[in-house]
Amino acid sequence: MGMTPIDFWYSIGSTYSYLTVMRLPEVVRREGLKLRWRPFDVRHVMTLQNNSPFKDKPVKAAYMWRDIQRRAAGYGLAPQIPAPYPLANLALANQVAVLGTKRGWVEDYTRATYRRWFEMGQPAGEAPNLPDSLSAIGLDPVQTLAEAESDRIVAALARETEAAMAAGVFGSPSFVVGTELFWGDDRLDDAIAWARRPV
Amino acid sequence: MGMTPIDFWYSIGSTYSYLTVMRLPEVVRREGLKLRWRPFDVRHVMTLQNNSPFKDKPVKAAYMWRDIQRRAAGYGLAPQIPAPYPLANLALANQVAVLGTKRGWVEDYTRATYRRWFEMGQPAGEAPNLPDSLSAIGLDPVQTLAEAESDRIVAALARETEAAMAAGVFGSPSFVVGTELFWGDDRLDDAIAWARRPV
Repeated sequence: MGMTPIDFWYSIGSTYSYLTVMRLPEVVRREGLKLRWRPFDVRHVMTLQNNSPFKDKPVKAAYMWRDIQRRAAGYGLAPQIPAPYPLANLALANQVAVLGTKRGWVEDYTRATYRRWFEMGQPAGEAPNLPDSLSAIGLDPVQTLAEAESDRIVAALARETEAAMAAGVFGSPSFVVGTELFWGDDRLDDAIAWARRPV
Repeated sequence: MGMTPIDFWYSIGSTYSYLTVMRLPEVVRREGLKLRWRPFDVRHVMTLQNNSPFKDKPVKAAYMWRDIQRRAAGYGLAPQIPAPYPLANLALANQVAVLGTKRGWVEDYTRATYRRWFEMGQPAGEAPNLPDSLSAIGLDPVQTLAEAESDRIVAALARETEAAMAAGVFGSPSFVVGTELFWGDDRLDDAIAWARRPV
């Protein structure tokens, strides 16, 4: 059966993306998906689009944490809720991820840093989370961070963020299948079903 | 097996609530739910909480309509997308619904008015949708509207809106099971599973 590739657009810094990042590798394997991890800067997009889902919305934010906690339990995950939020260094966390897309370790890094963020209470994008996550996947933190902070990688993240917006992405996690956009961890099944449709 | 009652909090005026309103009676029957329809004024809550999910957010709003269209197809529904939005007379549409909770026709009215709104392009809360929906379920439109506009019913809607906020509700549709809140048509299954947990 044919399978359309899926672009998994996400930002380290998104809370609901924790659910997707932690369960995705097994889903990809089980479902036989062709899926690309594509980090972008969701904060840039949300600022441009006047779309801050939780800022100054304490009731909705409280619900978000409880909802994540319940959904995580359903996936066999045990996060410490609430995790530190929002992230001060969202851009840097995703610059590292973009570098990882070029080097083949984006998935390992993203999972390592989310685990420290959500399960150990350490904000992503800063010490100790960032250097420890890089060390844990066998990279040199000093050298990797220097490269992630280079103009070349800053520009690469900006380009990917533009590409995300061109695909209609406005939040994280999002799944793009051809021209169809699916937003939210709870739309992954719909995205997979769409990827299986005959083209 | 025990079954905790579910409060279905909704506002006529919410787009995603179309999905729930149209499929809920069959779900209630199939799953053997104890479920109460509880209309409230979501606009009042959103204004208080600085939470306008689609206003001045054209990219997110475009996604919302496409998402509803796809999910509706999955439920065997065929809405005309986009439906007129937002509703000018959201409060009146829900005053009528609150009256219906006292008279036993809230479910029939809500479905009749949503069908005209989403499948015939007629805004809820005004003519021709409102009088036609009331006539269709065997009520006298003039007499029913006069009663729905009374101080007693205006106050009843305000009380229900306060009760919704006291339960943590910030959007529509929401499902409350004991002290647990589930928000969104896509959380109905989670709410039902929670209602089945041993207490």
